[in-house]
Amino acid sequence: MVRVSEIAQRLKGEVIGAPDIEIRGVNGFELAEPDELTFAEKDYLSRLGETRAACVIVPKEFKGPSSKTLVKVANPKEAFLAVIYFFYKPEKYLPGIDPRAVIGQRVKLGENVTVSPCAVIGDDAQIGDRTVIEAGAVVGKRVKVGSDTIIYANVTLYHDVRIGNRVTIHSGTVIGSDGFGFVEKDSIQIKVPQTGTVVIEDDVEIGSNVSVDRATFGATVIGKGTKLDNIIQIAHNCQIGKNVLIAGQSGMAGGAIIEDNVVIAAQVGIKDHVRIGKRAVIGAKSAVKDDVPPGVTYIGIPAKDARIVAKEWAILSRLAKKRDKGK
Amino acid sequence: MVRVSEIAQRLKGEVIGAPDIEIRGVNGFELAEPDELTFAEKDYLSRLGETRAACVIVPKEFKGPSSKTLVKVANPKEAFLAVIYFFYKPEKYLPGIDPRAVIGQRVKLGENVTVSPCAVIGDDAQIGDRTVIEAGAVVGKRVKVGSDTIIYANVTLYHDVRIGNRVTIHSGTVIGSDGFGFVEKDSIQIKVPQTGTVVIEDDVEIGSNVSVDRATFGATVIGKGTKLDNIIQIAHNCQIGKNVLIAGQSGMAGGAIIEDNVVIAAQVGIKDHVRIGKRAVIGAKSAVKDDVPPGVTYIGIPAKDARIVAKEWAILSRLAKKRDKGK
Amino acid sequence: MVRVSEIAQRLKGEVIGAPDIEIRGVNGFELAEPDELTFAEKDYLSRLGETRAACVIVPKEFKGPSSKTLVKVANPKEAFLAVIYFFYKPEKYLPGIDPRAVIGQRVKLGENVTVSPCAVIGDDAQIGDRTVIEAGAVVGKRVKVGSDTIIYANVTLYHDVRIGNRVTIHSGTVIGSDGFGFVEKDSIQIKVPQTGTVVIEDDVEIGSNVSVDRATFGATVIGKGTKLDNIIQIAHNCQIGKNVLIAGQSGMAGGAIIEDNVVIAAQVGIKDHVRIGKRAVIGAKSAVKDDVPPGVTYIGIPAKDARIVAKEWAILSRLAKKRDKGK
Repeated sequence: MVRVSEIAQRLKGEVIGAPDIEIRGVNGFELAEPDELTFAEKDYLSRLGETRAACVIVPKEFKGPSSKTLVKVANPKEAFLAVIYFFYKPEKYLPGIDPRAVIGQRVKLGENVTVSPCAVIGDDAQIGDRTVIEAGAVVGKRVKVGSDTIIYANVTLYHDVRIGNRVTIHSGTVIGSDGFGFVEKDSIQIKVPQTGTVVIEDDVEIGSNVSVDRATFGATVIGKGTKLDNIIQIAHNCQIGKNVLIAGQSGMAGGAIIEDNVVIAAQVGIKDHVRIGKRAVIGAKSAVKDDVPPGVTYIGIPAKDARIVAKEWAILSRLAKKRDKGK
Repeated sequence: MVRVSEIAQRLKGEVIGAPDIEIRGVNGFELAEPDELTFAEKDYLSRLGETRAACVIVPKEFKGPSSKTLVKVANPKEAFLAVIYFFYKPEKYLPGIDPRAVIGQRVKLGENVTVSPCAVIGDDAQIGDRTVIEAGAVVGKRVKVGSDTIIYANVTLYHDVRIGNRVTIHSGTVIGSDGFGFVEKDSIQIKVPQTGTVVIEDDVEIGSNVSVDRATFGATVIGKGTKLDNIIQIAHNCQIGKNVLIAGQSGMAGGAIIEDNVVIAAQVGIKDHVRIGKRAVIGAKSAVKDDVPPGVTYIGIPAKDARIVAKEWAILSRLAKKRDKGK
Repeated sequence: MVRVSEIAQRLKGEVIGAPDIEIRGVNGFELAEPDELTFAEKDYLSRLGETRAACVIVPKEFKGPSSKTLVKVANPKEAFLAVIYFFYKPEKYLPGIDPRAVIGQRVKLGENVTVSPCAVIGDDAQIGDRTVIEAGAVVGKRVKVGSDTIIYANVTLYHDVRIGNRVTIHSGTVIGSDGFGFVEKDSIQIKVPQTGTVVIEDDVEIGSNVSVDRATFGATVIGKGTKLDNIIQIAHNCQIGKNVLIAGQSGMAGGAIIEDNVVIAAQVGIKDHVRIGKRAVIGAKSAVKDDVPPGVTYIGIPAKDARIVAKEWAILSRLAKKRDKGK
């Protein structure tokens, strides 16, 4: 339990209301219990009565009356993120190589590495300082993993892939499986060897059950700071920029190029070799078959500028209604 | 081989035809071989000649003539399910902890638990009576698994998740990976710690390669008796009710609420925080972005009442044909 | 480094230009570096100046001038595939059973089998000559795997499934999990036991994180020479023919029949019991709910003949534009 006055002090915020209330934890606006703290911005400020939280972090310019105890700060969302760590202690890993882990020949392990039971590290692999390889994860031959990275249980890293620093890869994810490349000859599919690799840059997070294929030649790349949700397909030779967000069950075909700061919603498909420009946004369930200019929002199957799609959907709806009345 | 007369006796049914035929097994209407038994209801009753099965279970009120040997019962589907077990013996697991399994410290194992080779159970976990943990499965620290549950090979349960009684989780599935929560600050994505957990209630079955994320706060919940197919994404804080059916490759975004007895077909996407009312049905490949009232059928992208969508599809089709003729 | 003259000699091709150039590797038209070789056919022949590759394989009838060194051959794509192997040596596996692998009772291992650490092979399984079972893979009881097959790390093969010769199965893939079969009784879902198996024929390749369910009765079949990409769902009793191509994140529901040489693009859904005729092509993101005749191309939600869909999309687009002008 932490007192509101103490929280306000650490946030350099101002308390309006009861500074002595004790807070058990933090939670979202709709989910918070009476002894929890939440935050509110914009529209939520007019609905403060709807949260059960006793205490709400609000912007310092907020004037409205409230039955809640308020903590006024410059940036409520950021302050809220900071408060989480007053209550939440991330899992600590004890450094050390479990005797039931399998370490190949000529493996280079950094300082304070953790390798859990039944993890398997292939010959000539390199693991950076303080990196964690969880139970059942398989690290292929000659793989390089940076420092402060966590490879969760049952992840598979194929041979020769490169993983940066401060990377998180969740369970069931596969990095470096063969790209889907075949050439038809007399009705038989002949495999094109996938001779390339995968490069995951620093500060990337990849969710669970994701598949990232190695390049046919060269490397499939996931840029610094990019975050992938679960069950995503990244085909061979995709080039994903920095600080990109990709939501669950989306997929991109071979050689697609996603520039920096793009946001891709869930269940989107991107055609091979298409380029998505910087800061573009792709709506959920879209199928992108042409290049997308920077900064715009595309949606639909096939995806078009969201303003055009809205018109098409409206017309179809109107026609259907008109016909109804005509009857 | 089992005689039809014996099957009829065990089902308390009436044989019409040859009671001495011997049956080798059971199968679906279209798939059955001449020495197998199947069942028929409704439309299938007028097509009895189309199955190759020698013997068909039919409703007791069925009057039609047939060249097949029939077994008349009150509820043919239920009787058929019972007959399966005359021929099918489920896999038995020998209780015991394989010496090549890895059991952490202070783990509490119930009676007659099975733990297979290379399964890893973390410190302070609890496993209920008669539960099976198959090869390569990883059970995190402090996880609680109930009784009579089966965790198949290469499943990953992250720390602190709770799994009920009589639960089945198929291979490659990940329970408790981090929710996809980031806050943008100066074009960089900052991780929101996922401090909650996952609760899987009794009698749930989850298919293979499914991802169920832990909650940001509180718990992602899958309710009693709910069944999930393969490759499904359940995001952080989803609340799934009881006896829900979700087909393959569907996904629901953060905080979606699926009420009891909802049926979701394959490749559906549900937007974050949307609520699907009791007994609603969502058609395949739909994108649900608004709340769905109880009991209705929604379909489409975006999903609407199925009767409206049928009209829109018909109009588009008619316009395309009209234009063709105009040429 | 390999000289162009040597490459031409091995391909029985003709050099136009500088035969003494040394080549470091091969790459795609757009990706090649100046010391790499690529190939060009059709449209690409008019754009030879756009690749940075020093040397390009072209058809022998190509007449155009070029600043590149050319190697003329009968079939450039095939020649290119051959050249890959001048530079690329596939990973070799040392035969042998790692002492940290787990081999059940009465397992029959062929000659020169490789079993890596923490792989688990169940009782009564059979593994053919020269087959590789990688780290963390789990092979169930009574499974039969053919010769020259590779089962990558963390694959799960459930009991009794049959895998052919020269098959490749990538990491995270699950073969033989239970089909999704339930019967509702008093609002409760009762499981239909999945008593069948899976048969993967010779020369099949399956990507990563794929789920192939066992049949309710009989077998789910993937035919000889068929290639599956990543994150694909094959439900119980699907019958997939020979030399079929299925791209990433597609799924087929129970009992779907895919005939020989069909091509299914990415993120497609196929309804249960639908039949796709020989050599049909299904466009990306389609939802197929009716049978597809042989040889045609279907696309859309629901999928129809691609020529009809193109008209519908055009009309909708035209109506939206007309309305705009009307304003």
